[in-house]
Amino acid sequence: MADARVEIIRRLTRREAWPSLKRTLEKTRAEDIAAAVNLLAPTHQRRLVDCIDDDSKMAEIFCMLNARECAALTTSIPFERLVTLMQLMPIDDEADVIASLPDDLRRKVLNALEGDEKAQLEDILAWPVDSAGGIMHPAAFRLKQDLTCRDAISALQEAGDLEMVFYLYVENEQNQLVGVASLRGLLTHPPSTPLKAMMSAEVISVPPETDQEEVARIVDRYDLLALPIVDPDRRLLGIVTIDDIVDVIKEEAVEDMMLMAGLGENLNPAQHSVFNSFRERFQWLLLTLVGGIGMAELINVFEGDLAKQTVLAGFIPVMLGTGGNVGTQAATIAVRNIATGHAGSIGTPQMLFREARVGALLGVGFAVILGGYALARWFDQPMLGLSIAISLIVIVINAAALGMLVPLTLNRIGVDPAVATGPFVTTGIDLVAILIYFGTCGVLLN
Amino acid sequence: MADARVEIIRRLTRREAWPSLKRTLEKTRAEDIAAAVNLLAPTHQRRLVDCIDDDSKMAEIFCMLNARECAALTTSIPFERLVTLMQLMPIDDEADVIASLPDDLRRKVLNALEGDEKAQLEDILAWPVDSAGGIMHPAAFRLKQDLTCRDAISALQEAGDLEMVFYLYVENEQNQLVGVASLRGLLTHPPSTPLKAMMSAEVISVPPETDQEEVARIVDRYDLLALPIVDPDRRLLGIVTIDDIVDVIKEEAVEDMMLMAGLGENLNPAQHSVFNSFRERFQWLLLTLVGGIGMAELINVFEGDLAKQTVLAGFIPVMLGTGGNVGTQAATIAVRNIATGHAGSIGTPQMLFREARVGALLGVGFAVILGGYALARWFDQPMLGLSIAISLIVIVINAAALGMLVPLTLNRIGVDPAVATGPFVTTGIDLVAILIYFGTCGVLLN
Repeated sequence: MADARVEIIRRLTRREAWPSLKRTLEKTRAEDIAAAVNLLAPTHQRRLVDCIDDDSKMAEIFCMLNARECAALTTSIPFERLVTLMQLMPIDDEADVIASLPDDLRRKVLNALEGDEKAQLEDILAWPVDSAGGIMHPAAFRLKQDLTCRDAISALQEAGDLEMVFYLYVENEQNQLVGVASLRGLLTHPPSTPLKAMMSAEVISVPPETDQEEVARIVDRYDLLALPIVDPDRRLLGIVTIDDIVDVIKEEAVEDMMLMAGLGENLNPAQHSVFNSFRERFQWLLLTLVGGIGMAELINVFEGDLAKQTVLAGFIPVMLGTGGNVGTQAATIAVRNIATGHAGSIGTPQMLFREARVGALLGVGFAVILGGYALARWFDQPMLGLSIAISLIVIVINAAALGMLVPLTLNRIGVDPAVATGPFVTTGIDLVAILIYFGTCGVLLN
Repeated sequence: MADARVEIIRRLTRREAWPSLKRTLEKTRAEDIAAAVNLLAPTHQRRLVDCIDDDSKMAEIFCMLNARECAALTTSIPFERLVTLMQLMPIDDEADVIASLPDDLRRKVLNALEGDEKAQLEDILAWPVDSAGGIMHPAAFRLKQDLTCRDAISALQEAGDLEMVFYLYVENEQNQLVGVASLRGLLTHPPSTPLKAMMSAEVISVPPETDQEEVARIVDRYDLLALPIVDPDRRLLGIVTIDDIVDVIKEEAVEDMMLMAGLGENLNPAQHSVFNSFRERFQWLLLTLVGGIGMAELINVFEGDLAKQTVLAGFIPVMLGTGGNVGTQAATIAVRNIATGHAGSIGTPQMLFREARVGALLGVGFAVILGGYALARWFDQPMLGLSIAISLIVIVINAAALGMLVPLTLNRIGVDPAVATGPFVTTGIDLVAILIYFGTCGVLLN
């Protein structure tokens, strides 16, 4: 039903049927309009935005879009309206959008804002966008520990603008975070109970520089709805809420998948021109091309062997294909183990040794099949089958080891290991495989 | 800090230092023990479980493990204790574990349970494990619409076992879901307000057969903490909560990544023997091997051309590598677009046409570089450079189109499209690429 609505909006925008579009938008939830915006080309997105007169609805839509798309839209909105929209957004979302604006516009917008809002924004903007500080919401529901449940309930009734209240954070006289209580706890204890008597003193919190992936891991492990961010003195700076965590988890998964395929980050086909997609992908694939030229040169060295035994050429694809697939599997396993924290705890040498053993088994398994085929097909040349079997074993073990080693190394030097499963590792493994294959055949067949 | 604790538990278990382990476990949160269990080999997992005497802590740990690991552990727990543990778990987690048990044990456990619990479990177990019904929690906080906020607060104070109360669901006299209210709403309205006057009548809900991925998409789009599941008469069957949604999103991302690499589903290296990993991966890679033999046969057909022009063999790797990478990119884009719902709304023909244009640009770009290289390197054979350039263009366009077409087709026939980016598509693209390459060269060079 919601998706049918999205589809209608998309059609009306494409048909440029502005009056009907306007009526439809008025009857549609902000979330569904945002979903429709995601499906439109940039020019249509701007037109659609022009059709929405209601500022608070527009601000809500902005919150649902990812910050980069949002920033792209804002450039065509009149400056006055932009500032109004910013003021209507929850401060964490506002900070995300402002962080993605072009430098001069960002400064202009920040200057147009005032007081508390500006100060809070500057606090958030001081942290990297993918850190706990960068995604936190500075307004948490917090009270002193000597207050009672009754006080807390009245405070809650008065706290108008705390959009996402999941927990009540309890502070001591030095404003340090000392406990946490659930809203339900406030209701189920007698009204006169002091907060410090009913709160849980075991509060899980993180410093603002924590990476957002780590924040997601903690929220997930402890099934939290919000995680408090504290400074070194345990003073509460803000909270990261579960809805932001869902976005982080999704974002990281997509990012990994894109990197693994050697694609850029933004894949939304409606938003990228064909030429931009081409350019982004071309850069990555150039590596394959350069590797390919290297392999052509390498194979050329073995021209003599090839002229005598053209059949050797026939096995090039299977050598590369098997090596590439085993290498990709090994790299994927390494990337996963790094992501889940297994890599650190199990230890790199054990993981490598394990993968090498799996690789050896795979290599032997394939060698029996492929060598057997070669023996049966060219039974007058038993050495051919043997060379093929031996090179395949070496290639597969090497692919398994390299496939695992590269992401582990990348991770150690601070590069996202997901890059490794893309064209990067495949091309490297291919080059080594060609060398192993022709080297082995050259030795054994002469 | 938490991870240091996990590491200590792992070491103590490996060293089989049971008394120290027991003391450590008593001081550790269930969530951290569960994280440690994930890192252990099956035999050590069972030993660790034996060291935990506290049944409610053990039940909590079970809730944190994934259902399959849990089920593996349960087989070594005495039957009486197993039933006790099951009774201590929230019913949705309990259903997940029971669904993963071997058939006979599942029946025995279900028979040992009684009354309401058994009936609720059977309701959940009737739905597929990856549907809304299969992951829902049947106990939702629900009240009749004519009650007041005061009534609701007292009901909330009495409702002891509702672990995750996010919203209050409001029903009419026919037990149909008619509205939803936040807990905070109960506090901020005057106590005598009837629920129907303060609730939101716009409730987003889904039927129990909805796929869990769709449930995750809705919860994420509308930033919900829980989604009600209703039957065709709008009667509330249960709720799916955000913590389960986080698990679904993570699970689906990992599943996609594994399928893309042609790996099985369970990757936890501590839990799989080397031989099992080998077997699982071998099955997938056999396809590459069969494809490889096909390519060897195909190349053999062009033996005559190869004998005259051994240099042709040198370009086999770059033809396959470029085609494979472009195909993987196209397939990844298709998989992403299917996952985000873009594929359906933008329309298959447009997506294909767009990808074909990007493919054409990539093909021409590569052809200029590689053809240029071949021309410079073998300047006495201008037709060689031309053949290489032309085949590369055709191969790349074909790879882009096939890479996109296969996941779209798989999705239409109900197979997970992520399979397509694995060895499946690559091998197919390789075969066609060899045919195009030698076909083109055969025609142009003779």
